[in-house]
Amino acid sequence: MSPEARLVEVRKHVLKQNDVVARALRTRFHGAGVFVVSLVSSPGSGKTAFLEKILTQLRARYRVAALVGDLATENDAARLARSQAPVKQIITGTLCHLEAAMVQNAVEEQKWNLGELDFLFIENVGNLVCPSSYDLGENLRTVLLSVTEGEDKPLKYPTIFNSADVAIITKSDLAEAVEFDREAALRNIQAVRPGMRVFQLSAKTGVGLDEYLEFLAERLAELRATATV
Amino acid sequence: MSPEARLVEVRKHVLKQNDVVARALRTRFHGAGVFVVSLVSSPGSGKTAFLEKILTQLRARYRVAALVGDLATENDAARLARSQAPVKQIITGTLCHLEAAMVQNAVEEQKWNLGELDFLFIENVGNLVCPSSYDLGENLRTVLLSVTEGEDKPLKYPTIFNSADVAIITKSDLAEAVEFDREAALRNIQAVRPGMRVFQLSAKTGVGLDEYLEFLAERLAELRATATV
Repeated sequence: MSPEARLVEVRKHVLKQNDVVARALRTRFHGAGVFVVSLVSSPGSGKTAFLEKILTQLRARYRVAALVGDLATENDAARLARSQAPVKQIITGTLCHLEAAMVQNAVEEQKWNLGELDFLFIENVGNLVCPSSYDLGENLRTVLLSVTEGEDKPLKYPTIFNSADVAIITKSDLAEAVEFDREAALRNIQAVRPGMRVFQLSAKTGVGLDEYLEFLAERLAELRATATV
Repeated sequence: MSPEARLVEVRKHVLKQNDVVARALRTRFHGAGVFVVSLVSSPGSGKTAFLEKILTQLRARYRVAALVGDLATENDAARLARSQAPVKQIITGTLCHLEAAMVQNAVEEQKWNLGELDFLFIENVGNLVCPSSYDLGENLRTVLLSVTEGEDKPLKYPTIFNSADVAIITKSDLAEAVEFDREAALRNIQAVRPGMRVFQLSAKTGVGLDEYLEFLAERLAELRATATV
């Protein structure tokens, strides 16, 4: 077997192991009645700014916590901690994605009682390729796309948009300055993932955040209706 | 051996093979007297807009060509072709980086006579992690960072900044709108790669492009002084 063919084989095996851990996590999350949201995007799309706002606003009514992945630094955990929510940084070293086992270990280490949480957010490493194949046991995968990145990103990175459940267009306060073509962006998202729900917002001005927050509240209610809390 | 340990072993072997191909490419490029520049960055940092401007301006005085990598679509090649320079798209499928063998194959397929080129540009897949370990036989690796991405990216993705030779801060026309902290960005680049030369420019307005073009001309002259054209 060539090294490349062997690499594909071994990768398949590693991915399969990840699925086993992810499935166990999902069962555990569901049993505890916690709604788990993961965030994926290119570096600099505004995941952390968005999440800081979301955690701050949700904290008034819900019990929330967050895990955040990066190759290096604890910068994002420090930023998110300003929301006063419990936050844990996961350092991946050279890995360009989080894996289910890392999420599991972080939850264990923090000794979080999942039954006492309403929402758990998982901010993945900023990368539009690697995270797409790794199930983290989440209920909702959210892909973020900033208006500054270019409207054709869904066509160029179809797998990550396909593996996500909803999309958020971020930094909408900059839309005019960068001549963002909203119709083209929506068309490209729908071409890759027909029927995908798309939110547009600005973490800076707060415009559009409420719609996403209401959506999360509805999804939590749905989960609770079926969970065994 | 665990699947993860085997994965690391197989990856090492694949990387080593890449180095062999990259070394052969570098010798060939040097012998032909062509100066090869690769561009790496996060998706949406403005590599293609920058490269279209660079190709257009260089064409007046130099013979230029470009290769451009993406997981899917020929969009970037179509954009770059507006510069009238010869351009070839490389589709990587699910791979988040270019490899030396892809560059070699593309050059063969295009039947480009390298001895008749002054500059060859290679735009890598938009990714701040994967491309860092793959030598493409280039003379100069340029990492791009847009003002909209956040000043701490060099600290969060140290390997790609470390593996690059020069850095370019792009979209400087948006610096004020996003409250870009130039000093912090420069400090973070220097922390990861002390002494790295940094250019700041806007492909949209053209401000700052000349300095980079002059730098390329100097580097070509140096190469020609040692090449066996």
